[in-house]
Amino acid sequence: MTHVPYDLYGARTGNSIRVAIAFEEAGLPYTVRLVDLRQGEHQSAEFMALNPSGKVPVIVDRSRGPEHAPLVLTQSNAILYHLADLAPEILLGSREWRARAHERFFFFLTDVILPSHAAFWLRTEATANVARKILNDRAMHAIGLAERFASESAFLGGDRFGLADIAAVTIVNTYERELPWNTLPALRRWYEAAMARPSVVRGMRAFDV
Amino acid sequence: MTHVPYDLYGARTGNSIRVAIAFEEAGLPYTVRLVDLRQGEHQSAEFMALNPSGKVPVIVDRSRGPEHAPLVLTQSNAILYHLADLAPEILLGSREWRARAHERFFFFLTDVILPSHAAFWLRTEATANVARKILNDRAMHAIGLAERFASESAFLGGDRFGLADIAAVTIVNTYERELPWNTLPALRRWYEAAMARPSVVRGMRAFDV
Repeated sequence: MTHVPYDLYGARTGNSIRVAIAFEEAGLPYTVRLVDLRQGEHQSAEFMALNPSGKVPVIVDRSRGPEHAPLVLTQSNAILYHLADLAPEILLGSREWRARAHERFFFFLTDVILPSHAAFWLRTEATANVARKILNDRAMHAIGLAERFASESAFLGGDRFGLADIAAVTIVNTYERELPWNTLPALRRWYEAAMARPSVVRGMRAFDV
Repeated sequence: MTHVPYDLYGARTGNSIRVAIAFEEAGLPYTVRLVDLRQGEHQSAEFMALNPSGKVPVIVDRSRGPEHAPLVLTQSNAILYHLADLAPEILLGSREWRARAHERFFFFLTDVILPSHAAFWLRTEATANVARKILNDRAMHAIGLAERFASESAFLGGDRFGLADIAAVTIVNTYERELPWNTLPALRRWYEAAMARPSVVRGMRAFDV
């Protein structure tokens, strides 16, 4: 029996899927632990013992061996950076590209993903409709700016697929039907290449039951 | 004449100040290039040549010497991570604490700073009042959760001041007057210690004219 040192607790959400893609891309073996959000499993005593915030994803990292306490880590982006520490050449590219990979990763995180999530948080408030639209438009507009990044190199952070691409691919996927693709030829080429990668194909399905 | 390899273009905003604090903390010499937002200097042709998005902060890193093109980097968080690459022991702590430092940094970024910024983006829309309040309350609530982090160790990401503390200190400063400090004794101790650090004192004032 092979010992798998990483457990990934998650569900079919963008944040969980990004971590699954990163595991696949880094070639690190992981076991998916599906958390059933509809059944409220993320609010169960068992899960809350792992993450008191009751949120997915969470990883349990036993890679340092049985003599060390397992590392329990929350926050999808922190997990991505932790995996990047374990496989830096793969997920952040060469030293030359590292700063650019940080820049592009944070662009997608702060300029696209977060306004989009903020809009999502407001979904239950009818009176917040105007705000939701402002934030969604902002996220869509920022994705359009990424046409320039996609024109500069094969991938968004440089010459290979890495953290920036992982951040981008799930959020572009969310907005896929709304984007004006005819004005985004470079982003379209990048998106098609990204979606065809085995790591992305597997990661996108990691939490399908 | 000493050659200063880093220029920091910024203004008196949380994002610029966080970068100034990181430079101070890392002990890296930098020159402040004040960008006058009220005069629209961030939209000038000169500045837009540096950052087409017209946003501060931006750094120009000439540390690799005159034989290399200078690195122009945008996105405050990417700049923080770039400085952490240059001074990892200082800004991310020991290897033991690195994953935790990532986790806490991203907690403040995604759970506190970003909802707070999203609320700020909505400020000009009177109809977005309800949404602003929801997002602000969310940011305030998340700061309260950090009481637990501050109880666990001297600093938020571990045993020394680092990226997580830099992310937290400027945003807690923003909400300082509204926080229920009597219920947050550990966070209060941390905040007082953080605000008294020479790096924070100097960084907070870096863009004062």
